[in-house]
Amino acid sequence: MLVFFILPLDENEPLTKNNQQMQQLFSKPGFLIDEHKCRRNIASMIAKAKKNQLIFRPHFKTHHSIEIGRWFREMGTEKITVSSIDMARYFASDGWKDITIAFPVNWLEMDKINVLSSAIALNLIVESSETIRFLNEHLKNEVGIFIKIDAGYHRTGISVNNSALISELIHEIKTSPKLKLKGFLAHNGHTYKTNSVKEIEEIHLGSLKELSKLKAQFQEPDIPLIVSIGDTPGASIMNDFEGADELRPGNFVFYDLVQEQLGSCSYDDISVVMACPVVAKHPDRNTIIIYGGGVHLSKESLKMPNGEQIFGKIVLLKDNAWSEPIPDCFLSSISQEHGVITASESFFNTVKISDLIGVLPVHSCMTADLQAFYLNFKGRIIPNHRS
Amino acid sequence: MLVFFILPLDENEPLTKNNQQMQQLFSKPGFLIDEHKCRRNIASMIAKAKKNQLIFRPHFKTHHSIEIGRWFREMGTEKITVSSIDMARYFASDGWKDITIAFPVNWLEMDKINVLSSAIALNLIVESSETIRFLNEHLKNEVGIFIKIDAGYHRTGISVNNSALISELIHEIKTSPKLKLKGFLAHNGHTYKTNSVKEIEEIHLGSLKELSKLKAQFQEPDIPLIVSIGDTPGASIMNDFEGADELRPGNFVFYDLVQEQLGSCSYDDISVVMACPVVAKHPDRNTIIIYGGGVHLSKESLKMPNGEQIFGKIVLLKDNAWSEPIPDCFLSSISQEHGVITASESFFNTVKISDLIGVLPVHSCMTADLQAFYLNFKGRIIPNHRS
Repeated sequence: MLVFFILPLDENEPLTKNNQQMQQLFSKPGFLIDEHKCRRNIASMIAKAKKNQLIFRPHFKTHHSIEIGRWFREMGTEKITVSSIDMARYFASDGWKDITIAFPVNWLEMDKINVLSSAIALNLIVESSETIRFLNEHLKNEVGIFIKIDAGYHRTGISVNNSALISELIHEIKTSPKLKLKGFLAHNGHTYKTNSVKEIEEIHLGSLKELSKLKAQFQEPDIPLIVSIGDTPGASIMNDFEGADELRPGNFVFYDLVQEQLGSCSYDDISVVMACPVVAKHPDRNTIIIYGGGVHLSKESLKMPNGEQIFGKIVLLKDNAWSEPIPDCFLSSISQEHGVITASESFFNTVKISDLIGVLPVHSCMTADLQAFYLNFKGRIIPNHRS
Repeated sequence: MLVFFILPLDENEPLTKNNQQMQQLFSKPGFLIDEHKCRRNIASMIAKAKKNQLIFRPHFKTHHSIEIGRWFREMGTEKITVSSIDMARYFASDGWKDITIAFPVNWLEMDKINVLSSAIALNLIVESSETIRFLNEHLKNEVGIFIKIDAGYHRTGISVNNSALISELIHEIKTSPKLKLKGFLAHNGHTYKTNSVKEIEEIHLGSLKELSKLKAQFQEPDIPLIVSIGDTPGASIMNDFEGADELRPGNFVFYDLVQEQLGSCSYDDISVVMACPVVAKHPDRNTIIIYGGGVHLSKESLKMPNGEQIFGKIVLLKDNAWSEPIPDCFLSSISQEHGVITASESFFNTVKISDLIGVLPVHSCMTADLQAFYLNFKGRIIPNHRS
């Protein structure tokens, strides 16, 4: 777990002049990025990849922003992962030359794949003979191929135990002039369903053990096969990457409440917050209504240890920072544009209509995807793929 | 409940030539609108409002599209509801002259309110003295004011029983030269949490009874107060609107699986579907992977009577129509870009990679909000507020 210095903001301090300055910058829900924290998350993951001699190929679907991509590039990143062909085109337009599309090949976008692969080193993932045959027939340029392996998540991929099918696909790839076998790619998404760091460790090490066996089985002297893994919980918590060659985490750039609960980060590592205007207060039920709903935050929710389902935690916004979550306050329900904060009485009394309140997102990937742009503390726009 | 003719498509027919034509139009997830069904939903709700002598002020947050707004206008609609100041500006730009923003006044956007209210008849909703005083101080033009009443949903509004506060607000509004009292506005969002049509009926009639009492209490001869209600379940299912003056439903324009489960519509009334390419098949677990995830559909889920949580139902796409939901097939999980269909064996065998599959959305408002545009059966773009 990454633990950093906690900003010394007094949780009980009433919203002050700083908040008034924020109001002048933000008149409706705005997705604020703390660039310092964001760069710190990037630097920390790059250092971990380097220490473990892993190829670092971060997933850019979380931030989906050319500008934030450049923060990675400034720190030496050259290879990236994306989740769609359009996102690959977007980042290729900013000079990224080595991109893996970590999503099953969409046959219907073959024309775009051919344009992209004429300009950059493109890697695709496959899990069937049908797709290999289709690529073989329609590809105009060479592409790298990862075989998608299911190491327990059961979303996509060939079971890590299905040697027969994997062997067949490898044979088909090797006999196809346009396909260059790169290795095995797995996503341990089941780390998100765990209740302890120990479970994450078991999934991570178990998966690497199985993938290493696969690599040993199919390794040939002339082709160094790559084992690529990428979930943020495993990448953040673990220090043992024996058997892996490449690391593809995405969420760590922002982190969020899900990651905090899993143990991947501390609250202070979360580098994004939704700034939301207070529009109503209901003293009879201690609820504060914010302009900030499912269309801004997404409807992802998180089950707290006491069983409550929450849609975000509440922080105080200051000029260049935000506080730790306010105790006993959380976003308790959400509709299209409304957010309902259930507040402690003391917090309720410090808040007034028109204040800006910060909401830490439950799942920052989904929240970031809803934004047409991000904002920094000065109100400057940071564009993204939707801009 | 509205029941219409069901399209005679054979559920067991394999995906045919028609699907191939669709493929040429849609290479990635596309939000298809059946214009015929959509117009039929509009006409039907207009007829109901007319029959019950209600002012019809549909909520445009669901479709958020100038073009679809024009379909309403062609049928005589002149007054509309929106959920944000920006959406009011968007529709005002297409000539809508009478708009209610059914969301607590956001003080931070006062400049926009003043511009809007100089050009159109604008109604705002309030639930506190603070906001009335703020408006009184900052408004440059007259606006209509609805007092937001909480008739049991407990999201926003003043409790219908809190006569003292309501009376105080009415006094403040009447003594404010720029504020013109229009009436009482309630949203019975708790109809969405019911398990039977009978419960919806109880909420609807109970709410109207309370609102009527309020109206009788504060009615004066010179100001005809308006009681405005608007949930789609109540508006679709009920035929008794005694006590209401205005109807503001929104979702009915598209309907969705939630509404079908509540009894507000039949499957055949759902006028939108997400067309998604099949990108992988997993015969070992009878799952079909589509390009279509939370960023396309939203992560809204629906609990089926058997307890299963689903993210969409599956239909066959034809040239100008789609089928009823395929039995025993549903979107069983969803991540950022992936959708996982759990399929019956017979359906699994008829589908191949690159087919387009239709997904009926769980909550069409949230799905529509994610789209930068919609498509019709010819692949023509229907722009919206995000375009």
